[in-house]
Amino acid sequence: MTGRLQHFRSVLLVAALAGFCIAGAAAQPAPTSAGPPDPKLVEDLVAAGRILADHGLLDGWGHVSVRHNRDANRFLMSRGLSADLVTEKDILEFDLDSRPVDTHGLPMSALFTERYIHGEIYKMRPDVVAVVHTHAPSLIPFGVTKVPLKPMYHRSAFISFGIPVFEIRDRAGMTDMLIRNPTLGHDLAEVLGSHPAALMRGHGAVVTGPSLPRVVGRTIFLALNATLQAQAMSMGAPITFMEPEEARKIEEREGHGLARTWEGWKRKVMGK
Amino acid sequence: MTGRLQHFRSVLLVAALAGFCIAGAAAQPAPTSAGPPDPKLVEDLVAAGRILADHGLLDGWGHVSVRHNRDANRFLMSRGLSADLVTEKDILEFDLDSRPVDTHGLPMSALFTERYIHGEIYKMRPDVVAVVHTHAPSLIPFGVTKVPLKPMYHRSAFISFGIPVFEIRDRAGMTDMLIRNPTLGHDLAEVLGSHPAALMRGHGAVVTGPSLPRVVGRTIFLALNATLQAQAMSMGAPITFMEPEEARKIEEREGHGLARTWEGWKRKVMGK
Amino acid sequence: MTGRLQHFRSVLLVAALAGFCIAGAAAQPAPTSAGPPDPKLVEDLVAAGRILADHGLLDGWGHVSVRHNRDANRFLMSRGLSADLVTEKDILEFDLDSRPVDTHGLPMSALFTERYIHGEIYKMRPDVVAVVHTHAPSLIPFGVTKVPLKPMYHRSAFISFGIPVFEIRDRAGMTDMLIRNPTLGHDLAEVLGSHPAALMRGHGAVVTGPSLPRVVGRTIFLALNATLQAQAMSMGAPITFMEPEEARKIEEREGHGLARTWEGWKRKVMGK
Amino acid sequence: MTGRLQHFRSVLLVAALAGFCIAGAAAQPAPTSAGPPDPKLVEDLVAAGRILADHGLLDGWGHVSVRHNRDANRFLMSRGLSADLVTEKDILEFDLDSRPVDTHGLPMSALFTERYIHGEIYKMRPDVVAVVHTHAPSLIPFGVTKVPLKPMYHRSAFISFGIPVFEIRDRAGMTDMLIRNPTLGHDLAEVLGSHPAALMRGHGAVVTGPSLPRVVGRTIFLALNATLQAQAMSMGAPITFMEPEEARKIEEREGHGLARTWEGWKRKVMGK
Repeated sequence: MTGRLQHFRSVLLVAALAGFCIAGAAAQPAPTSAGPPDPKLVEDLVAAGRILADHGLLDGWGHVSVRHNRDANRFLMSRGLSADLVTEKDILEFDLDSRPVDTHGLPMSALFTERYIHGEIYKMRPDVVAVVHTHAPSLIPFGVTKVPLKPMYHRSAFISFGIPVFEIRDRAGMTDMLIRNPTLGHDLAEVLGSHPAALMRGHGAVVTGPSLPRVVGRTIFLALNATLQAQAMSMGAPITFMEPEEARKIEEREGHGLARTWEGWKRKVMGK
Repeated sequence: MTGRLQHFRSVLLVAALAGFCIAGAAAQPAPTSAGPPDPKLVEDLVAAGRILADHGLLDGWGHVSVRHNRDANRFLMSRGLSADLVTEKDILEFDLDSRPVDTHGLPMSALFTERYIHGEIYKMRPDVVAVVHTHAPSLIPFGVTKVPLKPMYHRSAFISFGIPVFEIRDRAGMTDMLIRNPTLGHDLAEVLGSHPAALMRGHGAVVTGPSLPRVVGRTIFLALNATLQAQAMSMGAPITFMEPEEARKIEEREGHGLARTWEGWKRKVMGK
Repeated sequence: MTGRLQHFRSVLLVAALAGFCIAGAAAQPAPTSAGPPDPKLVEDLVAAGRILADHGLLDGWGHVSVRHNRDANRFLMSRGLSADLVTEKDILEFDLDSRPVDTHGLPMSALFTERYIHGEIYKMRPDVVAVVHTHAPSLIPFGVTKVPLKPMYHRSAFISFGIPVFEIRDRAGMTDMLIRNPTLGHDLAEVLGSHPAALMRGHGAVVTGPSLPRVVGRTIFLALNATLQAQAMSMGAPITFMEPEEARKIEEREGHGLARTWEGWKRKVMGK
Repeated sequence: MTGRLQHFRSVLLVAALAGFCIAGAAAQPAPTSAGPPDPKLVEDLVAAGRILADHGLLDGWGHVSVRHNRDANRFLMSRGLSADLVTEKDILEFDLDSRPVDTHGLPMSALFTERYIHGEIYKMRPDVVAVVHTHAPSLIPFGVTKVPLKPMYHRSAFISFGIPVFEIRDRAGMTDMLIRNPTLGHDLAEVLGSHPAALMRGHGAVVTGPSLPRVVGRTIFLALNATLQAQAMSMGAPITFMEPEEARKIEEREGHGLARTWEGWKRKVMGK
């Protein structure tokens, strides 16, 4: 009888644990949707990814997101897919814990592993409307050396506000270098602070902006400035960088505006 | 009564000021047109922009202009649009104060902000028929260092005539670095002087020529020479630059002529 | 009679020698086929070559192979053809001596001369499922200098396991530098040892992997790391390379997985 | 009467001079044709130009020629036209003084100015079957510095035979740097001597070969070696160049053969 009782208690325990797990899961139901986003915003999000892919700045792993137009606590990003292959139907909604509202039947493995980059930045930076995670090759050498990126080209003026380098070892020791969870996302967001972008050592960069055109432009001109700065450095002569006041004046004009170029870029990648 | 008088005088003053302003605006009516330009010239202007875009030398902001064939006091340039998207219907006429003859209903914000570059150069340089403003990446490192561009490649012979660097700080202190008004355009034209081109620190360059093919060729070979010179410098051995007399002989032959290549470039960008 | 006998014996000897030669040839009949390979594997092999050609990493001579899915003693590789022109019907089966099972009527000269690279590596490395031989330009400078490739970019983590340099002179003295026979293939495989890849001085590299997507990814990121390392070196500051433990963690995750990017790459090169 | 006589004598003088000029022209009738060339050779010549243009090695001015298959004293080359626009009907026949057999009604200005490069090399080098004149950018830095090109990449083995630099100043002082006449062509051919190629300071290079595929391959791998050598030099470590015996063995195999790659290159540029 003791044996049977024990058996019974074991069964109960297992059932209880299972119940707890189910309850645990139930404690985190899928977040609610903020409702359908502005179709123009979704179209721009698709375009943003394709423009960056067209510039060689997004590969199979980089991604771009935008805050939901109806709810600052939701953001939009594609499922895990090369940016140049994304269409409107691949766009999903996430809460700021980077949990999808509805995966449309996709397994969680079909999402970008590093989606936490986006959610954690949106949490800490109410001013940020759009985020890019890029592996732009020209940025890598600056991330692995102590050479600071400095603004050298007028459209890269925002670099004047400082581009910190995120060293994942300082936060988490030996890792596989991906931002695999909210904690690492939070660490990265802390290093980013109030800056427009941060390099990630041996990995790439994260870039933020107050709109999709701005974050796309910043990504393009961050990478271009890195190329130009390396070339100027190789010439062995002192470099005249931009003065902070020059940079401030340019940023006041939204990096000189991007509306015209944005329309041009978009026409090229979205077809006729 | 004094109060009423004062009020009345104030009203008069406001009215007078308003009248003055209206008169001021009326004092600058839209410039008159020189009449329809040669359709071939317009076609070549469209082609020039597309050729430079195809070479990666014009982005969403660079522009090319040409003097009107009927009137040396007018020039033609597109509305604000990426050069590779421009068609004949986007070409507008400007006077040498860079005021549009007719915006075809477009707001002034739809024009290139930096159109003053063109007007002010045409004013000071009667020999100039075409002007390019480019952000060619290879030129930026030369603009921010003290390293002078020197002619190293035969088709870049015109560099022998000198390529000054325009430092906007020397003229206007802290700015957003754009040529936003006639004064800055005039300053740039003064630094350009009688040279074929000038670099603009941290911004790009302006290139001039006696025809559209020449200015397009000069822009291409200015940028190419910069790339080649940087590469040669990195090899750490003395460089044999062109002698001024070699350069002079080449320029006498119009930079070796460009008619053949111009036709080839044009065929490629204008479709069959 | 002795003369006739001698003559007779000579005839016999000649016949015997001829028979021996025939038998010798007969001792090496064409290897037997392992049967038709998985069509998906053949499609992936074609795609692998086109993806690498699309990345500028295979020219008219580079090649990619994969072990046969039915028999570890057979591998599949195209006839001698530029990778971007290969279709399924160009794929041939080889044994581990790099002898074709059936040339489909092609002369031996229509095969890749350096097919021995593949067979000899498959012999010595049971863990290897796919092999690439590339002439990637960015790798050549590392092969001709004593500068070791080190992992600088997270997706190039496998470089941490060591990339030896094969100096053909050390094995065979003065040659035309091609892996023209099994002996040279064996020599190369010995230098490769258990490493994921080896550079070949003045020639290119060989890259191995446990699958076609992995070997394609490794080839792309080996070449990219070389480009980035050279750029970082030119900046003259100390470089933070990846720690072995970081690399190990990434490789445990199969180089962060390539399934998503593989599908994207494949869609692009295989048409709609 | 004296006046009339003088007038008459003047008229006679003018007539005599005109007659002399006509006679002078008549003393150099157009050379005779060797007859229609092999259509396959013409097709390959068109393909050669397009392949080099596709590799960025021929612009609007570079050119490729081949000796006529019926007569070693004639060669074939296109009229002055960007290589990527040339079709079979643009191919003209020249004698070794670089005089066209028949311009098909084109003015002499429609021919390449520098055609003398080809004729003079064919005169002095009976072994040469095909000639390329290129402005390949990667070669320019080597032409203007004292840094010798050395073979670093196996397919560039022919560099081992020496690549002299033609300094036009040493022969003709100050010029416009073009090979405008037979004398300059002869000077260049003398400096070329028995070498496979020669750099032209500040201008480009001339490359020779025993066939169109070989000269195309040599042009591609000369330019590639220059790129790779500059990159290796920038790494600051000693470089292992190819040994002369390695190079000799490779050249014995016709630079490792190009037939396969030639077919691939040709398919790409000649359409389906």
